[in-house]
Amino acid sequence: MKFLKIPAATITRLSLYTRALEDLVVEQVTVVSSKTLAELCGVNPAQIRKDLAYFGQFGVRGVGYYVKELLFDIKKILGLNKDWNLAIVGVGNLGCALVAHENFTKQGYRFRAAFDADPMKIGRKLTTGLLIHAPDKLGEVCRTEGIEIGVICTPPNFAQDIANRLIEVPVKGILNFAPTQIQVPEGFRVENVDFTVKLDNLAYHLTAG
Amino acid sequence: MKFLKIPAATITRLSLYTRALEDLVVEQVTVVSSKTLAELCGVNPAQIRKDLAYFGQFGVRGVGYYVKELLFDIKKILGLNKDWNLAIVGVGNLGCALVAHENFTKQGYRFRAAFDADPMKIGRKLTTGLLIHAPDKLGEVCRTEGIEIGVICTPPNFAQDIANRLIEVPVKGILNFAPTQIQVPEGFRVENVDFTVKLDNLAYHLTAG
Repeated sequence: MKFLKIPAATITRLSLYTRALEDLVVEQVTVVSSKTLAELCGVNPAQIRKDLAYFGQFGVRGVGYYVKELLFDIKKILGLNKDWNLAIVGVGNLGCALVAHENFTKQGYRFRAAFDADPMKIGRKLTTGLLIHAPDKLGEVCRTEGIEIGVICTPPNFAQDIANRLIEVPVKGILNFAPTQIQVPEGFRVENVDFTVKLDNLAYHLTAG
Repeated sequence: MKFLKIPAATITRLSLYTRALEDLVVEQVTVVSSKTLAELCGVNPAQIRKDLAYFGQFGVRGVGYYVKELLFDIKKILGLNKDWNLAIVGVGNLGCALVAHENFTKQGYRFRAAFDADPMKIGRKLTTGLLIHAPDKLGEVCRTEGIEIGVICTPPNFAQDIANRLIEVPVKGILNFAPTQIQVPEGFRVENVDFTVKLDNLAYHLTAG
């Protein structure tokens, strides 16, 4: 399944649509208009229709979208109709917060392995029951657990080394929380999470607005 | 200073450009071509020129951009030519990780106040030296410290109450890490941080790619 030239912003919005649709499922809403869905997502209805149009025909004119059906379809587009096996590397405050964060599980992201270089942590378990391994077990444990995505939460100076080991496993992609740029082979997918980018957005609007 | 109809993606990219430019300043690079800057940011040169064109004329044809000058100008556009005073509400694993995160300080975001409802934490200090207050001190402490942005890291069921209190202070904006939608008065600015959106992006590309 290949969809070329889909704007990154569309993918991000599809992700937000699934959040709203999941809430509607919980509230037992079966049909939603693009107007209501748009309000829930903080976008305009035309945007939703435009984003979905990249992937086919959705919804029924004059009726709206069938909630469960649209959720299923968007999840399929995003590759979320399966669970993903994750490894966390670095279980300091941030790593622990991520592993315990309910959104990951809700979205089908399962932490299956944890690593930390701190001898005080190795061999102990996280509150979720996940055993903390030494980094030199990374290849072995990740292969055994079928890890697909590595999540890096180490201090910045260790991030590249960990990335190299994850690529060697091989995992399919990396989510990097370390505040540093990671070099990866061409075609290998890394998403960087920088909290301050959101703050810059806020600062811009508080200044400009 | 008002710039209307600037795409949100442009603001996010400007934020990324400042990260690359700051690295160049550290490396004592004084001039950078749009090609090199584009490579450092993982975008194409035309994108940089287009993003900057919203705000005026930057760079010198045949020379490139003066690093410090461009950094100064983009920071001014983003409202980052000043420090911002932040309060953190909820100092669990995630809250502690944020307060200690070097990127915030580097970008001029200063945590000036911390709050938590846990009686075991109230009156204690974070590793950064910041005193943890009870939530009922929120209004008083935030006003004394001149807090402009509230950062919510509470469990989801407390987030709305804390948001209401922050709006009452009043703070200018909220950065919300709690996995729930917060209702705010029209015109009040909230940025939501949802880590799993980045993972959805990754999942999409690992599936579609």
